[in-house]
Amino acid sequence: MSDVVLINPFEVEAGAEEAAIAYWERAAAHMRAQPGFVSTALHRAIGPGARFPLVNLATWRSPAAFAAAVASPAFRALTQGEAARFPHHPGLYTVIRT
Amino acid sequence: MSDVVLINPFEVEAGAEEAAIAYWERAAAHMRAQPGFVSTALHRAIGPGARFPLVNLATWRSPAAFAAAVASPAFRALTQGEAARFPHHPGLYTVIRT
Repeated sequence: MSDVVLINPFEVEAGAEEAAIAYWERAAAHMRAQPGFVSTALHRAIGPGARFPLVNLATWRSPAAFAAAVASPAFRALTQGEAARFPHHPGLYTVIRT
Repeated sequence: MSDVVLINPFEVEAGAEEAAIAYWERAAAHMRAQPGFVSTALHRAIGPGARFPLVNLATWRSPAAFAAAVASPAFRALTQGEAARFPHHPGLYTVIRT
């Protein structure tokens, strides 16, 4: 299977954006070191009122590589305290039309 | 302002995916012809149960270019009948961390 794209929209309350970005930075630092990681880019909405003020787009070599990275005890320890604070809707995707 | 990224997650009921893709294709055909359009890629979730089975990622030269494209009478006529069938959450973004 070719690369897969993680698209992870985050719901972020007003005033919590900096905390959400700091949370993303900690998680991204862990993910960058995992086998099969290719790239990541945190996107911020340019205007107010976006349903998802932050969206992470990342590329992984395979679904299995991503699954292993998020299943690791280190990632769980790193995220479990805060994940609920920023409801998010991760999914793995491939491109079907351009 | 540099390019902006449209991230548009779609909620798609089971069995409605082909209709949603056809809807996207009609809209994309219109968008490709608009000033400021750069690229578009429709992403499909690789597994079942994704909150957003389809996500469109597109690049535009500016927020104004995108706003003009969606405000055009042609786009409104093309989408108004079906947009409600596929709830979606478009936002314009820039990258803030990689």
